[in-house]
Amino acid sequence: MSYLAPYRDMQSLMRQAHQALGLSQFSSLDDYDLDLADAIIDEANKFASQVLAPLNQVGDTVGCRLEDGQVLTPPGWKEAYQQFCEAGWLGLALPEEYGGQGLPKYIAQPVNEMWQSSNLAFVMFAALAQGGTEILQKFANDDIKDRYLSRIVSGEWTVAMALTEPNAGSDLGVLTTKALRQSDGTYQIKGQKIYITYGEHDMAENIVHLVLARTPDAPSGSRGLSLFAVPKYRVQDDGQLSEFNDIRCTGIEHKTGLHGSPTCSISYGDKDACIGELIGEENQGLKAMFILMNEARLSCGLQGVALGELAFQKSLTYAHERVQGSIAGQGRVAIIEHPDVRRMLLDMRSQTYALRALGYRIAAMIDAKENSDDHQHVSRVAQQIALLTPIFKGFATEQANLTAGSAIQVFGGMGFVEETGIAQVMRDARITTIYEGTTGIQAKDLLHRKVRLDQGAALDELLASMRTDASLAQSNADLGLLAERFEGVLNTLEKVQRHILSDQADITELDAVAVPYLMALGGICSAWQLLTSAYRAAEQQDQDKEYFGNVMLLASFYFNNQLPKFEASLHTVLQSGSEVSQYRF
Amino acid sequence: MSYLAPYRDMQSLMRQAHQALGLSQFSSLDDYDLDLADAIIDEANKFASQVLAPLNQVGDTVGCRLEDGQVLTPPGWKEAYQQFCEAGWLGLALPEEYGGQGLPKYIAQPVNEMWQSSNLAFVMFAALAQGGTEILQKFANDDIKDRYLSRIVSGEWTVAMALTEPNAGSDLGVLTTKALRQSDGTYQIKGQKIYITYGEHDMAENIVHLVLARTPDAPSGSRGLSLFAVPKYRVQDDGQLSEFNDIRCTGIEHKTGLHGSPTCSISYGDKDACIGELIGEENQGLKAMFILMNEARLSCGLQGVALGELAFQKSLTYAHERVQGSIAGQGRVAIIEHPDVRRMLLDMRSQTYALRALGYRIAAMIDAKENSDDHQHVSRVAQQIALLTPIFKGFATEQANLTAGSAIQVFGGMGFVEETGIAQVMRDARITTIYEGTTGIQAKDLLHRKVRLDQGAALDELLASMRTDASLAQSNADLGLLAERFEGVLNTLEKVQRHILSDQADITELDAVAVPYLMALGGICSAWQLLTSAYRAAEQQDQDKEYFGNVMLLASFYFNNQLPKFEASLHTVLQSGSEVSQYRF
Repeated sequence: MSYLAPYRDMQSLMRQAHQALGLSQFSSLDDYDLDLADAIIDEANKFASQVLAPLNQVGDTVGCRLEDGQVLTPPGWKEAYQQFCEAGWLGLALPEEYGGQGLPKYIAQPVNEMWQSSNLAFVMFAALAQGGTEILQKFANDDIKDRYLSRIVSGEWTVAMALTEPNAGSDLGVLTTKALRQSDGTYQIKGQKIYITYGEHDMAENIVHLVLARTPDAPSGSRGLSLFAVPKYRVQDDGQLSEFNDIRCTGIEHKTGLHGSPTCSISYGDKDACIGELIGEENQGLKAMFILMNEARLSCGLQGVALGELAFQKSLTYAHERVQGSIAGQGRVAIIEHPDVRRMLLDMRSQTYALRALGYRIAAMIDAKENSDDHQHVSRVAQQIALLTPIFKGFATEQANLTAGSAIQVFGGMGFVEETGIAQVMRDARITTIYEGTTGIQAKDLLHRKVRLDQGAALDELLASMRTDASLAQSNADLGLLAERFEGVLNTLEKVQRHILSDQADITELDAVAVPYLMALGGICSAWQLLTSAYRAAEQQDQDKEYFGNVMLLASFYFNNQLPKFEASLHTVLQSGSEVSQYRF
Repeated sequence: MSYLAPYRDMQSLMRQAHQALGLSQFSSLDDYDLDLADAIIDEANKFASQVLAPLNQVGDTVGCRLEDGQVLTPPGWKEAYQQFCEAGWLGLALPEEYGGQGLPKYIAQPVNEMWQSSNLAFVMFAALAQGGTEILQKFANDDIKDRYLSRIVSGEWTVAMALTEPNAGSDLGVLTTKALRQSDGTYQIKGQKIYITYGEHDMAENIVHLVLARTPDAPSGSRGLSLFAVPKYRVQDDGQLSEFNDIRCTGIEHKTGLHGSPTCSISYGDKDACIGELIGEENQGLKAMFILMNEARLSCGLQGVALGELAFQKSLTYAHERVQGSIAGQGRVAIIEHPDVRRMLLDMRSQTYALRALGYRIAAMIDAKENSDDHQHVSRVAQQIALLTPIFKGFATEQANLTAGSAIQVFGGMGFVEETGIAQVMRDARITTIYEGTTGIQAKDLLHRKVRLDQGAALDELLASMRTDASLAQSNADLGLLAERFEGVLNTLEKVQRHILSDQADITELDAVAVPYLMALGGICSAWQLLTSAYRAAEQQDQDKEYFGNVMLLASFYFNNQLPKFEASLHTVLQSGSEVSQYRF
């Protein structure tokens, strides 16, 4: 088996998040208890390991093809898509109103993690369906909702996001695709977009492109963008498909990884026959995109966890099998006996575990936000989610790249040979620090919009939660030392906080250390989650000495081997100097 | 132009190394002065940028093919090889006695760096010729030398190293290839080897395989290995080629990178007609291999520098061209104006510069060792080279992987699209931390053979050199603070030294932090070299304010942004705990 869900961790971290956010207080969540969640995870694991995982390497080696404007997905893709939708997996967390199951996020999160571990390239349509549904629900008029939403939730139609243009990557303000209002209220769309995931494919009967475009009289910059639903085949008033909507795939990218997921260049309205329907108001497109972007960033952070897990599993299996070198008294041994290999495996495992804990916690926060009636609480939780989003996205994906690298290292020479499949994890992971906003962009978002804008209020609250958990851990004899060290790091973080918020701070110099700052916060959040898990593990130790003992070891391993580096990044932030401006390239 | 030698840095660091090792004292080096060196670098740059660099991407996209047992190299490879040898580049540092030019290493090093930057996959034969020549010169009898060496130096024949077998990667002791002595003194070779770089190709008329094999009565383990020259076509007494020597290429690897360099599986003696000639004595094969291994490790470290430089150059060019985002008061800007992009570029540049300095210094050390008559000095320098070899190999290649990752990050979405060529650098770099001994193996070598074995004597001497250079730097007002911080780090390193050498040290726990230890030493050596360069730059500032000012900025940037992480790794070593042994996988 090339992937099996880390069932035990998932179960345990789902509970940790559930408890931390007090989800049991919400009667609206009563339909779903943790036992049901376990059962769902169990089923999803079967699908992930038996259907999706076996297609992962095929997707990489065969990839997608563009033939006469049609994108052909890898062998098996189409059938797996059919099964995925029919089994109800697509609709899992989508609204019940349109045929979904409306599952809480804290349960959907581990399920999504499995999809992403077992076959990330394949499952990218699912996050698009999730984001597209949310946008249409929030912004589209009832007519559009009625005609589109149930088809998207069922998987009959897929969603594609058309944002980027050749000259506009991170900088959406300079988009030039045009939307011309017509007498019937629809718009004629014309322009070229690139980097459109599943922009064209052969798995569903229609593709709903959500296109950012500009009306003729729109203000310049990002405030002049409107969002349109632009289906590959037009959708009649009765919801039936009619003629082809003049949307052409002009190319698919030859990418380093994610070969199974077609990344399309699309030309809209070559023959002036591409019709779009406005979603929401004109010039309000970016607002809708932001919702999607935040969703996508959290999903992308989870990809970091998922690929980290996959890298760990593959190298653990290999380390058990590969005999090489000997140890005094033991003769020749499997390489898992070598301390350096164990160190690499623990690096991978502790980081992935910590980020899983963080990701599940964020999912539970979304549930808390969506189910609470206490407006003040909702807004505080929303702020925390907003603060954690760039940290989780940026840090989890950066760490996934390192983890994939360590996995190759465990494989040695075999890691460089494509047949073993481990290099694919590295190649697939490579884009995660780039798409949905590079790490640099996450870091700027964190520094300015999430920390400086509210004068550090949200971060102060996060720190307070961390201190509460640390003092709890301090009460346990085995964890006192870790808790103490953690508090030391938090003290340094507070010094950094003052430095960043100071009136004297030089913005250029701060921007130059934004990524080290994000990385430090990512490491600190990881340490926090591990400390919390270790505390819970210490309490449950008697139930399963080996498993919970391991969890406690993960925490102390991380504190010795990883945390010092992130603490060092705090010093980098404090020492931020003018070299970056002064250097002449 | 896709690559241009960093001429200015090369010139300046060649002089820095020359001075540091006092090479002007050796009259045997009088034939080569620094001006001649500059001229050679200038010529090599033309060849690298005009002939080799344009073939680099072709090598990646087309790769090698195996057809009927013949390996076909990528288009242009054969012609470039011809030109390379005819222009005398192959023989540059090879012995004059056999037709080479016997250039000192401190000049050959920047030249080799250029080859590796411009087309690493192509030029891998050169290091093999270098190592093969050295082995034959030191160990082979005169007859073999006479028949083989001039052909290797001229490039008419290439060298291949056949060590690894499917079950014996890092662990040579379990090799099973057989060598049966025959009445005429030759040996019949039989066995399967894998991972043989240029083990078969179409660029030269013969290939001399240096094969590790075992005679029937040999002791088990690595002390029973003998080394044989096994040519693809047999070599008659008069040096002429005769019949095919029963050496068959059974496959080439489908690798993540270095597609232009064929990595062959070879079957020796399928028809019992493969004849080898013993090099040196029976059972002394490993001794010869060690020489080669050390050579290869230093060459591999230089690959880290070379790929780091290539990654830096490509992303610098892109950052100047790509317009994205705006800056208040400047409107839309090239991304090089964004502080985070500048940070990434400075990360790449400072690390690559530092490792270039270290690599050139090691080359100058080899010259000092080979030209000095003072036996004590020779043995001390040899010890220093032995100490620095695993650090340079391990650290430079690990950093090259990070640098290549940062380069992709500068490219953003375009970095994930293969056409831009930057992902190739990452893929090519991926093997450098694995072949010629993984980073884990370098770290064990460093910890045990290079530090613990001599009770830290060699490292103490290295530290003394560092302290001398630091106190020199301290005399300069602009560098006082850096020098002080550096001395602080050295104090921590001394604490680590005592920890490692302590009788109470737990070997398993130490082994588990061997890599962090190596990384810390790599970072410290980098900081040392940058401090030294900054000191020299401060002295020459008036000659070129911009260039030397930049060098000083590189040092302080590295001290703020990189050194803290490596200092943190020292703390990881000090806190080495038992998690690695206790954890149950």
